[in-house]
Amino acid sequence: MRTVDLITKKRDGGELSEAEIRFLIQGYTDGSIPDYQMSAMAMAIFFRGMTPEERANLTMAMVESGETIDLSAISGVKVDKHSTGGVGDTTTLVLAPLVASIGVPVAKMSGRGLGHTGGTIDKLESIPGFHVEIGNDEFIELVNRNGVAVIGQSANLTPADKKLYGLRDVTGTVNSIPLIASSIMSKKIASGADAIVLDVKTGDGAFMKEMSEAQELAACMVDIGGRVGRKTVAVLSDMSQPLGNAIGNALEVKEAIDTLRGQGPSDLTELCLTLGSHMAVLSGAASGKEEARALLEQAIESGKALEKFKTFLASQGGDASVVDEPERLPTAKRLIEVPAKESGFVASIAAEQMGLAAMLLGAGRATKESPIDLSVGIVLRKKIGDAVQAGEPLAVVHANEVGVEEAIARIYESIAIQPEAVRPPSLIVGEVHANA
Amino acid sequence: MRTVDLITKKRDGGELSEAEIRFLIQGYTDGSIPDYQMSAMAMAIFFRGMTPEERANLTMAMVESGETIDLSAISGVKVDKHSTGGVGDTTTLVLAPLVASIGVPVAKMSGRGLGHTGGTIDKLESIPGFHVEIGNDEFIELVNRNGVAVIGQSANLTPADKKLYGLRDVTGTVNSIPLIASSIMSKKIASGADAIVLDVKTGDGAFMKEMSEAQELAACMVDIGGRVGRKTVAVLSDMSQPLGNAIGNALEVKEAIDTLRGQGPSDLTELCLTLGSHMAVLSGAASGKEEARALLEQAIESGKALEKFKTFLASQGGDASVVDEPERLPTAKRLIEVPAKESGFVASIAAEQMGLAAMLLGAGRATKESPIDLSVGIVLRKKIGDAVQAGEPLAVVHANEVGVEEAIARIYESIAIQPEAVRPPSLIVGEVHANA
Repeated sequence: MRTVDLITKKRDGGELSEAEIRFLIQGYTDGSIPDYQMSAMAMAIFFRGMTPEERANLTMAMVESGETIDLSAISGVKVDKHSTGGVGDTTTLVLAPLVASIGVPVAKMSGRGLGHTGGTIDKLESIPGFHVEIGNDEFIELVNRNGVAVIGQSANLTPADKKLYGLRDVTGTVNSIPLIASSIMSKKIASGADAIVLDVKTGDGAFMKEMSEAQELAACMVDIGGRVGRKTVAVLSDMSQPLGNAIGNALEVKEAIDTLRGQGPSDLTELCLTLGSHMAVLSGAASGKEEARALLEQAIESGKALEKFKTFLASQGGDASVVDEPERLPTAKRLIEVPAKESGFVASIAAEQMGLAAMLLGAGRATKESPIDLSVGIVLRKKIGDAVQAGEPLAVVHANEVGVEEAIARIYESIAIQPEAVRPPSLIVGEVHANA
Repeated sequence: MRTVDLITKKRDGGELSEAEIRFLIQGYTDGSIPDYQMSAMAMAIFFRGMTPEERANLTMAMVESGETIDLSAISGVKVDKHSTGGVGDTTTLVLAPLVASIGVPVAKMSGRGLGHTGGTIDKLESIPGFHVEIGNDEFIELVNRNGVAVIGQSANLTPADKKLYGLRDVTGTVNSIPLIASSIMSKKIASGADAIVLDVKTGDGAFMKEMSEAQELAACMVDIGGRVGRKTVAVLSDMSQPLGNAIGNALEVKEAIDTLRGQGPSDLTELCLTLGSHMAVLSGAASGKEEARALLEQAIESGKALEKFKTFLASQGGDASVVDEPERLPTAKRLIEVPAKESGFVASIAAEQMGLAAMLLGAGRATKESPIDLSVGIVLRKKIGDAVQAGEPLAVVHANEVGVEEAIARIYESIAIQPEAVRPPSLIVGEVHANA
C-alpha cells in the first residue's frame, strides 16, 4: 500500500477501505507516514468528505492508535457527555453529581483548557484541596462507591488524533465535519464510554456558528456512534449568547452549586435537565425522558444532587464546605459593575467577545504554559430579551490587576440594546437520535 | 502573514495576492514554510485552481527563487522550445541546428532524463567526444559564433519548483494544471528565454492523455507567457503513437540526422517544421509562418541545416563525422525483427507500452543512478494506418544482453492490427496563440 495512492484515491472521490484507513492512521502514529502526506490527505478529505463507513473506520483506527480505558469493572452502562464548547458552559460541573445522584455512573476523564476560561479540571481546582491525580484503580473504586469521579486525561489516549489535530490546526483542515466528528468520538470511545450524549452548540459563541453545520456534525457523530456500537444522542443547543450568567472558573463553580440547589439560571438548568435526561435513559436509570426529568428535578429539590456534589468533592480531597460557604472559593479583589448606557431591551450578547473579555481578565489560557486566575471573570446581569434601564448593571466584572479597562470595553461592544422588545432565543434547538 | 491563513483563503476559493504567493514560495524555498503546509496548499490548489494572475505570480516567484540565466549578451530574440514529453521525441536534436541555420539563436539548457529513453543530453552524448561541460561564458560565445549551443541544467535553477515538484509527486498533487504550467514556464524563463514555443502532446504516450486537458494546459502556459512578457505559442501534437520511428538514444540521433538531411519520417519532419516555423517567427528570422517554413525547407534541401549540426557537434567536442558515417554511433549487438502475426492494417500503437519496451532493453533510467545503454532501442517499421502482411516486420529491436523477450512481448501487446483500413491520426491537432 502506498500513501500517495490513497491520497489520490480520496482526492478523486473514492472510498478508503477499513484496511487503508488503518494503514494511514497506524503509519501516521508511528511516523512512517510523514506530516506532508497526511496534510494533503486531510485537505482532500476537506473537499471530498468521507462516507459513513469511512468515518466509523477512522474513529476506531484513532481509538486503536493508543491506550483505551477499561471501565468494565464499573457496573452499569457508562454514559459520557461531550460538549463542542462554548462560553460559560458549566454543565459538566452540574451534570456529574446530578446524574450520579439518580444512579447513572459517571467516570469522567476531563481536561484543562485552552480558551476563554479553563477546562473542567481547572474549574474544580478552584475548590481548595481538590485534585485529579488519582490512579486508575482508585478512579474505578470511587465511581463504584460514590457513583462519580473525575480524572485527568491520559497522555496516551488517541495519539493519532492528537497528532492529526495539531497538523490540521496549521494546515487549514480543522473545519472538516468528518474529521471533527471522528476526533470527538474517538476520544469518548477511548475513554471507555458505552453510550454518549453530545451537546452540539450553535451560534456566535460556538465552533459551529451555523445551525446547518451543527446539525450535520451532530448527525455525523450519532451515526458513528451507532456504527461502532455506542448508543449516541445529540442535543443542539443555542450558544448565541453565553450559557448561564457566570464566565470564569470559581464563578462557574459557584453557579454550578446554585444550579444543583435549584437556584441556578434557567437556561443552564434547562440544558442540564435535558442532557441529564438523555444520560439517564441511555444508562437505564430511567425508562423514558419524562421519568428521567422527574427523577432529576426531584434530586435537585430533595438536596440529593447537592449532597452528591459534596461527597464527590470530599472523595477527591476537596473542601466540601465551599458548597455551603461559596465565599471560601477564590475571590477577585475588585467587583466593577458595567452599567447600561441606554434603556431598552438586550438584543444580542456576542458570546465569543464576552469570552475574550473574561480571558483579558486572566480567566483563560492563551498557551498551554499560561497561568490562569481562577477567581476572575464576568457575571451577566442581563440576557437576551431582558429589559434594561440606563445605569442599571449589565454585568459585573470580577477582576484582579489585569485587563479591567479592555474587558469593560469588550463587554460594551458585545452587548447590543434596542428600543423594541426582543424575544429570547430558544435554548434547545434540536435533537438527533440514531434511526430506530 | 501566516501560512495557515493563506491555505484557508485558497481552500475557500479566494485569490492569493502577488505578495502572498511570493511569501509562500520564498518561505518554502528557505525552509521556513514546512512541507506539510505546502502540500495542503497544493491540494487546495488542486481543487480550487488558480486565477491567471495567480499562475503568473507563481511562475515568477519560482523564477526568482534561484539563479536565472542572463542571455542578454547573445544578440537577437532567444526562443526556447519545450515539449511536455512523449515517446520517441527527437525534435530538439533536429530543431536546434535547423532553426540555428536560418538565424534563430539557440541557447539551449537541457537535461538528462528519467523515462523511456534518456534526455537530450544523453542522446547527444552518444556522439563520441560530445560534452556539455562548458562554462556560461563559453556557452554564450558559442551561441554568438555558431548560432547554437547546448549546456547542462544549472543545479540552482528554480529550486522552489524542484522542491515543490518532489513534494507534489508524493502527495497526489502532480495533476494540477496551474501547478504544471507554472513549473514548466518558470524553468523556461529562468533559463533566459525571451519567447517560448511549446509542444503540448496529447494521447496515450503523453502526460496529458485527454485533448481537453492538453488544451487547457496549453492555454494556461500561453497566458502565463503573455502576462510575464514572454511571447508564447503552443502547438498541440498527437502522441497516440510514438513520434518518428526510432525510440532509443543513438537510434534517435541517427533519425535526427536523417531528418536534417530531408530523409526523416514524415511526422517528425512535419512537427519540426511546424515548431521551427513558430520559433523563426517569434525570433524575427521570418515575417510569417509561410516564409519561415520555406526557409526551413530550403535549409534542409541545401544541406545548411546538416552543416549547422556538424558545426554544433564539433564546437562541443563531438565527432562530426558521425553525421556522414552514422555507423560510428554506439551500435547494439543484436538486431531482431518483430514480424506481424497477422495481415491487416495497424490500428493503434500504444506509445507508453512501446516506451516501456525500449526501457526494458536499457534505453532509459528508472532512477537517477541507473546506467543507460545508448545503443539499444526500437525502430518501428509500421505506423498507424499502414498495411501489413503476416510475417512482415512491425519493428526492429536493437538489443544487447537484457530485456529482449520482455520487450518483444510488450511490442506485440502495444500494436493492434485490424482487417479494416485505418485512417492515420493527424499529427498537429491544435495551436494556441496569445490573444492579439
